[in-house]
Amino acid sequence: MSWQININSDMGEGYGRWQLGSDEELIPLVPTVNIACGFHAGDPRIMHRVTAAAIAAGADVGAHVALPDLRGFGRRPIDIDADDLRDDLLYQIGALDAFVRAEGGTMRHVKPHGSLYAMCGRHEHYARALLHAVARYDTSLIVIVGQGWPELLADSYGLTVRHEGYIDLDYQPDGFPQVEPVKKACDPDEVARRAVAIVKERTARALDGSRIEVATPTLCLHGDMPNVLEVAARVRDRLAEEDIEIVDLASAVR
Amino acid sequence: MSWQININSDMGEGYGRWQLGSDEELIPLVPTVNIACGFHAGDPRIMHRVTAAAIAAGADVGAHVALPDLRGFGRRPIDIDADDLRDDLLYQIGALDAFVRAEGGTMRHVKPHGSLYAMCGRHEHYARALLHAVARYDTSLIVIVGQGWPELLADSYGLTVRHEGYIDLDYQPDGFPQVEPVKKACDPDEVARRAVAIVKERTARALDGSRIEVATPTLCLHGDMPNVLEVAARVRDRLAEEDIEIVDLASAVR
Amino acid sequence: MSWQININSDMGEGYGRWQLGSDEELIPLVPTVNIACGFHAGDPRIMHRVTAAAIAAGADVGAHVALPDLRGFGRRPIDIDADDLRDDLLYQIGALDAFVRAEGGTMRHVKPHGSLYAMCGRHEHYARALLHAVARYDTSLIVIVGQGWPELLADSYGLTVRHEGYIDLDYQPDGFPQVEPVKKACDPDEVARRAVAIVKERTARALDGSRIEVATPTLCLHGDMPNVLEVAARVRDRLAEEDIEIVDLASAVR
Amino acid sequence: MSWQININSDMGEGYGRWQLGSDEELIPLVPTVNIACGFHAGDPRIMHRVTAAAIAAGADVGAHVALPDLRGFGRRPIDIDADDLRDDLLYQIGALDAFVRAEGGTMRHVKPHGSLYAMCGRHEHYARALLHAVARYDTSLIVIVGQGWPELLADSYGLTVRHEGYIDLDYQPDGFPQVEPVKKACDPDEVARRAVAIVKERTARALDGSRIEVATPTLCLHGDMPNVLEVAARVRDRLAEEDIEIVDLASAVR
Repeated sequence: MSWQININSDMGEGYGRWQLGSDEELIPLVPTVNIACGFHAGDPRIMHRVTAAAIAAGADVGAHVALPDLRGFGRRPIDIDADDLRDDLLYQIGALDAFVRAEGGTMRHVKPHGSLYAMCGRHEHYARALLHAVARYDTSLIVIVGQGWPELLADSYGLTVRHEGYIDLDYQPDGFPQVEPVKKACDPDEVARRAVAIVKERTARALDGSRIEVATPTLCLHGDMPNVLEVAARVRDRLAEEDIEIVDLASAVR
Repeated sequence: MSWQININSDMGEGYGRWQLGSDEELIPLVPTVNIACGFHAGDPRIMHRVTAAAIAAGADVGAHVALPDLRGFGRRPIDIDADDLRDDLLYQIGALDAFVRAEGGTMRHVKPHGSLYAMCGRHEHYARALLHAVARYDTSLIVIVGQGWPELLADSYGLTVRHEGYIDLDYQPDGFPQVEPVKKACDPDEVARRAVAIVKERTARALDGSRIEVATPTLCLHGDMPNVLEVAARVRDRLAEEDIEIVDLASAVR
Repeated sequence: MSWQININSDMGEGYGRWQLGSDEELIPLVPTVNIACGFHAGDPRIMHRVTAAAIAAGADVGAHVALPDLRGFGRRPIDIDADDLRDDLLYQIGALDAFVRAEGGTMRHVKPHGSLYAMCGRHEHYARALLHAVARYDTSLIVIVGQGWPELLADSYGLTVRHEGYIDLDYQPDGFPQVEPVKKACDPDEVARRAVAIVKERTARALDGSRIEVATPTLCLHGDMPNVLEVAARVRDRLAEEDIEIVDLASAVR
Repeated sequence: MSWQININSDMGEGYGRWQLGSDEELIPLVPTVNIACGFHAGDPRIMHRVTAAAIAAGADVGAHVALPDLRGFGRRPIDIDADDLRDDLLYQIGALDAFVRAEGGTMRHVKPHGSLYAMCGRHEHYARALLHAVARYDTSLIVIVGQGWPELLADSYGLTVRHEGYIDLDYQPDGFPQVEPVKKACDPDEVARRAVAIVKERTARALDGSRIEVATPTLCLHGDMPNVLEVAARVRDRLAEEDIEIVDLASAVR
């Protein structure tokens, strides 16, 4: 039997004078790059630079859309009107696509960030706002969402939704990830072990010790993890040892 | 002999709770609509609403791009790095295009706003940043600029540049418009008279009384002029009386 | 028996190019002015201008503090960390006080705006963040809050809290006001009638017809109500006819 | 003969998720702390934390005021109206003072940041806007400015102005510092050598080799220099070896 998995990573999360992550070094290690669109992080110059680097490296690029909250890094839930949200998302998707088009590439996916990720996973009107925005823009875009998300909902919008698995965050028993205010370094071996478990056994262990079924074509690596380069290298090595091929998102087996 | 002219108007210049202009009523009166992109005014919800209304009315839609300065309404010169500017412009162009695409339309043009308009007219590196951004996005976009602008510069970018004429602002002797901090009401007859003079005589009179040659395919009407609806109606009536046809920008004789 | 009441009004709610309300005309009609501090509306220039006008007119000035949400006019609930909120409030209070001090006045009160108003009324940790911020700044400041607010809580911070009554908004049965997205014009006679009822009968009628007890030393008039000047004049006239004296907040009988 | 000098350092220059500098470790090494006020960097939470740490350590705290430009870190010249600037500065001064007062301290000084620093040094109307703002707030505040600044101008505002010397930036021949987009590490010995030269010989060497007279009571150490802690320690050691006492700004001999 042959195994395959995709890895996606959040990048471009600096702003102006402030840097975060090691995008240039990380890009060659991941096939799928989610780029911040200026609402929780990222400014146009950073967006252009990371987009260009990702396309040059042959990675797939997508919009990492967020709530309008630079100060809170998109992590503070905002009780936003669903139509305002839809338009905030269209705005971000188009803005990122400008850089993708300027660099001769094709935008492949959209992924909600931070609180938006959880809000879309928990409230149908927000999930619909996200799907509506993506569908109105381009139905060929894949939407990366969390475990437990209503996949069927996407069908009515003509969209493809893909769950992702977490390997550098702990699972809560309900399948949502436990987000840290400031991402801490992770044990590379532990992250690699989780990656293999998700691919081969389709399971992860939650914080309360319970076993969660995780069927996913893509694993998320957080670009703001201090030792992300070391972790990414270890994960890649372990996947190779286990004969698990790293592929692009569209090709990945669910 | 048959006369033709285009009219372009700035719209979508509110923000959140704040309204400016009478876009819904003005849209049917002008064939070319410049929509604020969130940097000097406009938010995603407003951008979507005005874009939808303009496309529904059969008007052409373009991006009214600006310096990042909501507080100063894009009117404060900022000594911005030219590459930062290029990326700010790509960001805005893409963001507006998302709404145009969502509404099934095609973006037709780009026009710089406020200080950016003057900066691009006076400094080649900023003019190049604008042209670079537009050309990397879509070379079929027309760029609306001020009198005196280096039209030839656009050729090397494969772009079409079109001068515009002012009928509700006074001309400075160098051909730049005299911008008011808060747009005041204009005499509709005087604005209509200027419109006819520009179309038929290709001239305008500057603040110092001198006569300026104005060869332009499009006249600008400012959407934040308090009596813009009355002025637009009067201009349209006078143009009709003079057998001057109002046409879209691409068709307009230079 | 002699009757007294205070009237407080929200002002300075424009931003940059955008105006809202008729502050200059309204200031002479109300003794207590709440000035936006730049988080939901207001910019430093507006804050200075309104503060100077209010102090020149002999009105009392206070900080109308809000969540950081210019786009949403401070009306979108944000699940903000309580310590972040405390510091956002200190920031705004100090910022407004700079203009009060520059104009030789003394800041008298603080009032939360929009969603913050409701959040502080419904969640103790946010109420405490507000009280903490005010108390750390100046314990002589009066805090204006909504009906149902835990007045006793303020004692432990050494602060004075005062409820306000609504006369241009409808009451919900729980005593919270029904906020409109865009403030509509009100019937001046109806608003004046409500004002007299609150002062003399200490009651208001809720949307469901129920009668609510309202014991308050101050009535709120919203400065962004389109006909606020007419309404304010009518309220003043009716209060005078009923021998109700308009007084400053500190003097007002509860 | 006894020598004395003050050292001032810019701190609190992170924003939300983004950190910059090592404020906690640097505070014990410098007697005068300039704290960003949210316009070029700094958010209320950071402002409060750094203010509290500085006051707890016995350092003097001042407002590091800036142009409104988070994206450009206050380094992009903006052609701002002088009255708008005055009010932006009052706003920032008051905002920082809220935290100083909340922590039981007294704000001691104001220092312009980035482009504002140069603009105030080169244009009298901006220098006056700064002095006007500070004087209207509190005439006991010391204003830290660059070499070549019109000290006499401050007299008419009843203010004290103090030049500062640069030891981790190169001097341009006109006495202005050569600012780097991203502060690089400096040779601690070279910085310490410059510090001693300014104190004992009142001179610095400019980029073109010319000798500049520098008479200043305070030396600036940039908190965003990567090795600022090492540099600060070396400077302190060298000053001690040369019998130069580090004192607060008000006491420092000019």
